[in-house]
Amino acid sequence: MKLQIAYDVGTYQDLVILINKIQDLIDIIEIGTPLILREGLGKISHVKKKFPDKKIIADMKIMDAGEIEADIGFDSGADIVSVLGLASMNTLLGVKTSANKKNKQVMVDMINHPDPVMHWMEILKYGLDYICLHNAHDDINNTKNMMNIIQQFSKKDKCENLALAGGIEPVMLKKIKKYQPGIVIVGSYITMSENPREATENIRKILN
Amino acid sequence: MKLQIAYDVGTYQDLVILINKIQDLIDIIEIGTPLILREGLGKISHVKKKFPDKKIIADMKIMDAGEIEADIGFDSGADIVSVLGLASMNTLLGVKTSANKKNKQVMVDMINHPDPVMHWMEILKYGLDYICLHNAHDDINNTKNMMNIIQQFSKKDKCENLALAGGIEPVMLKKIKKYQPGIVIVGSYITMSENPREATENIRKILN
Repeated sequence: MKLQIAYDVGTYQDLVILINKIQDLIDIIEIGTPLILREGLGKISHVKKKFPDKKIIADMKIMDAGEIEADIGFDSGADIVSVLGLASMNTLLGVKTSANKKNKQVMVDMINHPDPVMHWMEILKYGLDYICLHNAHDDINNTKNMMNIIQQFSKKDKCENLALAGGIEPVMLKKIKKYQPGIVIVGSYITMSENPREATENIRKILN
Repeated sequence: MKLQIAYDVGTYQDLVILINKIQDLIDIIEIGTPLILREGLGKISHVKKKFPDKKIIADMKIMDAGEIEADIGFDSGADIVSVLGLASMNTLLGVKTSANKKNKQVMVDMINHPDPVMHWMEILKYGLDYICLHNAHDDINNTKNMMNIIQQFSKKDKCENLALAGGIEPVMLKKIKKYQPGIVIVGSYITMSENPREATENIRKILN
C-alpha cells in the first residue's frame, strides 16, 4: 500500500514546505484540483526537482480533449494524470494514448459514477493503470456505500490497481486495510492537521 | 444571441492579443480548460482589466468541492464559472451558493450527460443560470444528436438559458439560429483561423 498525499489547500510553495516535513513517510504527491485551478500545472517541474524519488500525480479530472490535456499534465512533469470515469470512451483513450507516448500512467477517478466497478471491468482492457474509488468532498458522509463498493471491487479485480480517496483517516483506514489497495490517498487528515508529521505517522503505522 | 469566444490554444498573453483584434464583435470571453490547466485562474484579473465591458467565463468544469472551487474562480475575476452536469447535486448547489454570495453566474456543462434536458428540468429550480449543451471535442462528429437535443430542449425551456458549444462554425450556426440560444460558443473556427477577425465577422453576420 502506497501513501499518496493530496494537497489542495495552499500554494506550490506551501506544498514544498509540507512535503519537506513528511517526505520519508509518503510515496506519491498529489497536486490537487484546487491548486491546479489556482496556479496551473507549470510549477510541477519544481516539485519534481525538489523530490525526484516521489511520483507526482496531477488531479486534473480530465473530462474532454483527453490527449491534449494529458499531454499538458505529463509535459509539466506529472507521472500520473487523472481522468474522470464519467468522461466519454474517446476521452479516456486519448488520455491513455498520451500516457503511452510518454511512458506515464493514468488514474481513472470514478467520482459520482453510478457503477464504478462495472465500468472499470469494461475499460480495464485498455491498460489503464489505476481506478480511484472516490468519496467526493461534497458527499463525504457516504462512507458506508464506499465500503460496499470496495468489497464488490475486490471480488472482480486485484486491489493493487485500486486507489481509495475521500475523507480517509485512521479509523476508516483500519477498515480498508484488509483489502490491501495499491494506493491510499489522504488529504485533510494530514494537510489540515496542526502536526502534519504526527498525522502522517499515524497513517503510516496502520499501512505498515 | 451572445457570442462567446472559447480560448484554449495558447497563453493568457496570446488571448489578449486575439481579443484586441475582435473585441467589438464578441460578448463573452471564455478561459478554456486547457489554458486554466496550463496557467491557472490567477491571470483572469488582467484580462478583466483589459476588457472591462466583457463577461468572462472560467471553463473550470467543476466536479467536486463546488463552493471552494467556484470561490477560486469568482475571486480570480470570472463572472461565470462552469460546473459539470454530471457532478453530484451537492456540488452543483455548492457552486450556486458561491455564485449567490458573490452575485455571479453559473453555467452547467452537460458534456457526456446521458439525458441533459431531463437533468436541466430537475435542477432548474435551483436558479442555475445557463445550461451548456456541449458536443465534446473528443466526440465532435456527433452533431446530428446535438440538433435533436436542442429541439427537445426548445420544447421544455426558454432558449435564452441555452448555451451551445462544440465545433460550431457558420454551416452549423445557420441550423441552430432558429432556436435563438442565449449564447453561442465558438472556439477553433475563430482561434485556429488564419484571419480570426474575418472568421469572427462570418459568425457575427449570421447572429445579427
